[in-house]
Amino acid sequence: MEETFVPFRGIKNDLKRRLLCYRQDWSGGLRAGIRILAPTTYIFFASAIPVISFGEQLERDTDGTLTAVQTLASTALCGVIHSIVGGQPLLILGVAEPTVIMYTFMFNFAKDRKDLGHKLFLAWTGWVCVWTALLLFLLAILGACSLINRFTRLAGELFGLLIAMLFMQEAIRGVVEEFGIPRRGNSSQTALLPSWRFGNGMFALVLSFGLLLTALRSRKARSWRYGAGWFRGFIADYGVPLMVLVWTGVSYIPVNEVPQGIPRRLFSPNPWSPGAYSNWTVIKEMLDVPPLYIVGAFIPATMIAVLYYFDHSVASQLSQQKEFNLKKPSSYHYDLLLLGVLVILCGLVGIPPSNGVIPQSPMHTKSLATLKHQLLRNKLVSTARNSMRKNANLSQLYRNMQEAYNEMQTPLVYQTPATLGLKELKDSTVQRASSGGYIDAPVDESVFDVDKDVDDLLPVEVKEQRISNLLQAFMVGGCVAAMPLLKKIPTSVLWGYFAFMAIESLPGNQFWERILLLFTAPSRRYKVLEEYHATFVETVPFKTIAFFTLFQTAYLLLCFGLTWIPIAGVLFPLLIMLLVPVRQYLLPKFFKGAHLQDLDAAEYEEYPAITYNLSFEDPVNQASATNIDSGEIFDDIMTRSRGEIRHASSPKVTSSTQTPSEEMRSVYTPRLTQRAYSPRLNEIRSERSPRSNQGLEIKQTPSPGPSVLGQTSHVSSSSL
Amino acid sequence: MEETFVPFRGIKNDLKRRLLCYRQDWSGGLRAGIRILAPTTYIFFASAIPVISFGEQLERDTDGTLTAVQTLASTALCGVIHSIVGGQPLLILGVAEPTVIMYTFMFNFAKDRKDLGHKLFLAWTGWVCVWTALLLFLLAILGACSLINRFTRLAGELFGLLIAMLFMQEAIRGVVEEFGIPRRGNSSQTALLPSWRFGNGMFALVLSFGLLLTALRSRKARSWRYGAGWFRGFIADYGVPLMVLVWTGVSYIPVNEVPQGIPRRLFSPNPWSPGAYSNWTVIKEMLDVPPLYIVGAFIPATMIAVLYYFDHSVASQLSQQKEFNLKKPSSYHYDLLLLGVLVILCGLVGIPPSNGVIPQSPMHTKSLATLKHQLLRNKLVSTARNSMRKNANLSQLYRNMQEAYNEMQTPLVYQTPATLGLKELKDSTVQRASSGGYIDAPVDESVFDVDKDVDDLLPVEVKEQRISNLLQAFMVGGCVAAMPLLKKIPTSVLWGYFAFMAIESLPGNQFWERILLLFTAPSRRYKVLEEYHATFVETVPFKTIAFFTLFQTAYLLLCFGLTWIPIAGVLFPLLIMLLVPVRQYLLPKFFKGAHLQDLDAAEYEEYPAITYNLSFEDPVNQASATNIDSGEIFDDIMTRSRGEIRHASSPKVTSSTQTPSEEMRSVYTPRLTQRAYSPRLNEIRSERSPRSNQGLEIKQTPSPGPSVLGQTSHVSSSSL
Repeated sequence: MEETFVPFRGIKNDLKRRLLCYRQDWSGGLRAGIRILAPTTYIFFASAIPVISFGEQLERDTDGTLTAVQTLASTALCGVIHSIVGGQPLLILGVAEPTVIMYTFMFNFAKDRKDLGHKLFLAWTGWVCVWTALLLFLLAILGACSLINRFTRLAGELFGLLIAMLFMQEAIRGVVEEFGIPRRGNSSQTALLPSWRFGNGMFALVLSFGLLLTALRSRKARSWRYGAGWFRGFIADYGVPLMVLVWTGVSYIPVNEVPQGIPRRLFSPNPWSPGAYSNWTVIKEMLDVPPLYIVGAFIPATMIAVLYYFDHSVASQLSQQKEFNLKKPSSYHYDLLLLGVLVILCGLVGIPPSNGVIPQSPMHTKSLATLKHQLLRNKLVSTARNSMRKNANLSQLYRNMQEAYNEMQTPLVYQTPATLGLKELKDSTVQRASSGGYIDAPVDESVFDVDKDVDDLLPVEVKEQRISNLLQAFMVGGCVAAMPLLKKIPTSVLWGYFAFMAIESLPGNQFWERILLLFTAPSRRYKVLEEYHATFVETVPFKTIAFFTLFQTAYLLLCFGLTWIPIAGVLFPLLIMLLVPVRQYLLPKFFKGAHLQDLDAAEYEEYPAITYNLSFEDPVNQASATNIDSGEIFDDIMTRSRGEIRHASSPKVTSSTQTPSEEMRSVYTPRLTQRAYSPRLNEIRSERSPRSNQGLEIKQTPSPGPSVLGQTSHVSSSSL
Repeated sequence: MEETFVPFRGIKNDLKRRLLCYRQDWSGGLRAGIRILAPTTYIFFASAIPVISFGEQLERDTDGTLTAVQTLASTALCGVIHSIVGGQPLLILGVAEPTVIMYTFMFNFAKDRKDLGHKLFLAWTGWVCVWTALLLFLLAILGACSLINRFTRLAGELFGLLIAMLFMQEAIRGVVEEFGIPRRGNSSQTALLPSWRFGNGMFALVLSFGLLLTALRSRKARSWRYGAGWFRGFIADYGVPLMVLVWTGVSYIPVNEVPQGIPRRLFSPNPWSPGAYSNWTVIKEMLDVPPLYIVGAFIPATMIAVLYYFDHSVASQLSQQKEFNLKKPSSYHYDLLLLGVLVILCGLVGIPPSNGVIPQSPMHTKSLATLKHQLLRNKLVSTARNSMRKNANLSQLYRNMQEAYNEMQTPLVYQTPATLGLKELKDSTVQRASSGGYIDAPVDESVFDVDKDVDDLLPVEVKEQRISNLLQAFMVGGCVAAMPLLKKIPTSVLWGYFAFMAIESLPGNQFWERILLLFTAPSRRYKVLEEYHATFVETVPFKTIAFFTLFQTAYLLLCFGLTWIPIAGVLFPLLIMLLVPVRQYLLPKFFKGAHLQDLDAAEYEEYPAITYNLSFEDPVNQASATNIDSGEIFDDIMTRSRGEIRHASSPKVTSSTQTPSEEMRSVYTPRLTQRAYSPRLNEIRSERSPRSNQGLEIKQTPSPGPSVLGQTSHVSSSSL
């Protein structure tokens, strides 16, 4: 995305680019078939459960003016519209905590005014929405989203972690409250006796921890050792919703003598109960609002506009991280414009507006990456098996697989040149096979282990389409009708789910990984390299990493503290936006440029992690390396870097990358591994990096390759 | 151990051999210093907690005649005596569940007889003990323990799993009972209201699962990524007792309005309360028992004798498994004789006798293996560091380490020739280094990574000594005095601990591993090879493994079912002993001899696991392999087999062994790994196996090496 402040240009560009993919957004989604239900239900739960919970909170805080019915309706309405006409369909919309806080603040303000009061509260928020929408239009038209380029990992990941903290806080507070008298008396009198409250609290602990632990486990089912493949796949795809069902079932086990109201369950009016529709006619009352308040509505509107601008853009940014290798373009400007429309719409029907939400949006992308991986994998595995049955040799096999892979590729007019994945590997492996002498022999499983090698061939890709977003929005809408069923879910399961979402959002957040690094025993720091794609561990001195991380943590705690201050709390996004100038002007005074670049590059071109090249001066390996021609060396690099481009957030958990420790060992065992070529490897890598920068993707100045490499050899020679 | 039925010969041999080590049993333990406290406290908790719980059970079932004070006293008394004058100090003694069942049965019999009754019950059990002891003497003298040789893994592991099931049953029953009205009314009336019972049950769930999960985690602390090394080591060593403390602390958190008696805590009379000493004078009343009952006592005595003979011997056997590489001799005959003495002693003072317990005894050995590993490791690491500081070259380094290692070795007169560990590795690595050309250069961390390589050098060894057993017995004795403190432990923590012990006893049990194998997805079965030393996975067809395991499982369930039948229950050891003839005469009719040998060898000479040698016919690797001289090949084999002799039960969790999958891949990547030499490797291995059979350890005919190897190459060629 280029930085442009020419009015309308950003919106025009976004629209132009996304329209080119629009048809494919639907057809691609349809082609995924029934499997699309896995990410859909996953995101539906992640979207609906917090919205219901926020609705309950809003109901308490607005004396029942707004309920879970309204928050669900808003989420569904905005979700459906965004998934159909929105720019970036990976973005998930929903009523978020800041919106709830703002509405609570506005309600407290309105209810005490004689000429506004309870009655005109929704009409007044209608005006707030109108103003907010106008401001959002202005921001979208003037290209304010171009600033997104300046939002580094620093701000985005801090925001992500803050949201995780708020979710975790909600979970803990929820469980603690299960021991107390509920703020709304929906339990029978018996259930409020101290003895039953104690039992209720303990039961809540069991249910919430049960959900949390089993849900976390189920997400990793694919790598379980036990059970058939389809079973593990099913658990991994649908485990979380399934666990909500299971633990809801468990909550019905104690029946003997246990009074109604234990455990406490979701509370919400049925949408067909009288009075539930009062808000839909809000538009008629908007002109009854005194003019002074119409103008005054501008003040909360600015706050909400800033909040939404930031929230929406960062959610969109986090769902389009480089790691996902997205092929379709972003659409920040246009989506902000559309958000303005949605805000007006919600304002006029008297429901709180939705905006892009974290962590649901990145969760959505991750689950679609898993889906795409499965689809590609199935296709390629069946192709490979077919070819083997026909006694194809290795090059035929790869040709067939390449064809199958290309078939699966989206023929986009606008596209980043990312089809490299399979092609290069094909060439390299064929070449290797030919030098191995078995190029013409029919391939069997010993040469090409279908199940394993296909996994290695596949790059991270995301099934970018609109179906999953649309379906989940419809399902959220369906919740309004399914309210009687939803009410069977115990609130404690909900708290467990909040904790689950907080924990699920952590992996892939480099800020979080750096915090963990601080607690990692020095001898085990190399393990970070093993799991995450964390180049900085090698290139930046540990002290600098620690200092940078501590600064960020202090800033995070400051933001978290701010959310506790009643009214100023909603302004915490401002504090996070302040990080942008801090990063640009203040931090360079404390940190070396190269280090900052590694720790926090704006649009960071990820280099393949560079391994300790200890064999640098190893005469044995040096000598033997000369026997192998340079083509093979290059192939090896490609194979290797393919393995290393993986991220914690990628669906490929089983990395074949060797650990540094193994590498260290390889120095004094007489293996002639590819590590022997490291010096050349570095050369070729530095040649390669500029090439990979030619993509059409938006980029700031990419970090200079040689500097990184230079530092690496520094590090490695010190450990020699 | 030779099979001898000449009277007294077994006892004499045992005594002679153990006396040779006796001095070292003490001095070696003292030399371990303060670190001996880690296995001591670990076993103390594993020993004391079940004994206390069995004491409570006994108190309920004998109307308070016997309590936890008596079971603790018996465990402490027998433990102290056995650890001082016993043969095998790895064996842990304690009052076990079968004893409790027998005593309950005898109490029920006695209390209804007019001329026996409550009053003479203990005196009568005194007579039972006398008869039992006489029978045990007879068994010991006649060399019945020689039959231990015939006890294959089949019986021992089935028994181990049965005990695990009984512990788990105890845990589950305990937690369920927390919801009900306790059989003994030690709680206040308020705490018995349905509402508080519900809360109590839920709290029990929280406490027991909390203990179970954290205790299991803490055992793995050494491989945690976070925290300093000393911290992780401390948690791994003392985590379980610590967790008992932590969760006892947690149980005191709810104070508001929660009545006394929630959660329920241990109940036992203080040893200084009146009447607690009535049993000590039982010897005076023994002559008051009517003669008919004195003779009749012979009937329960036979049952107990059979039980103890089996229990004691199997516990001893499981604590001396081949995997532990013990260097000191066994002492089955003499220990059985001593058990007889202990039974008389206990009988005369009116306390239930102790015998060798499972899973505590194998747990004891495992924890001592961890200790030994740490001691060796520390010594060798510091030696290596010292040598490096003095700019030693590689051969000097190894010489120094070898010296240090030898210093740590026990200079035993009676000893298996097991000092191979370090020596061979030294030779091989030095040789390799010399061919690498850096033999004379000063060694640095890049050539010899101290922390990692020392781990690889070390074989599994056990700190065999008497101190830990003696100390834990004293600590159990101390529990009698510390009763007021013990009473603070909630019963629910105890149930969690039972579940923990059941789970801790599973790894290393090949029967259990085979059950898991049945549930393992076919594509992941190779992982079993990776983790366990399970040769059978390669050599025995899966169907045969499955059939064998199903038979064993059915037999296990039969035994488990038998324990539920009130009186016949105590006879379940007979059913397990029946397995010996079943294994010898019945099973060979259904299974091939070679398969049975692999699945269940009596004293199984463990071959190093043989890896798929896929590179067998690979021309590239074959060719390049010729460049390397055969000395190196041999070295590689030694290095490799060293890595592979590891077992799941060994303290070396971080295995450097490559997985078969990696190996498969190595075929078509141009690495010249040591896998290239596999054909020769097999030859050399089969040459080597007879040599390693020359040890003085007791052995049945070792399984013929070539047959195993032949089958392996069959398997591997089929997967080519």
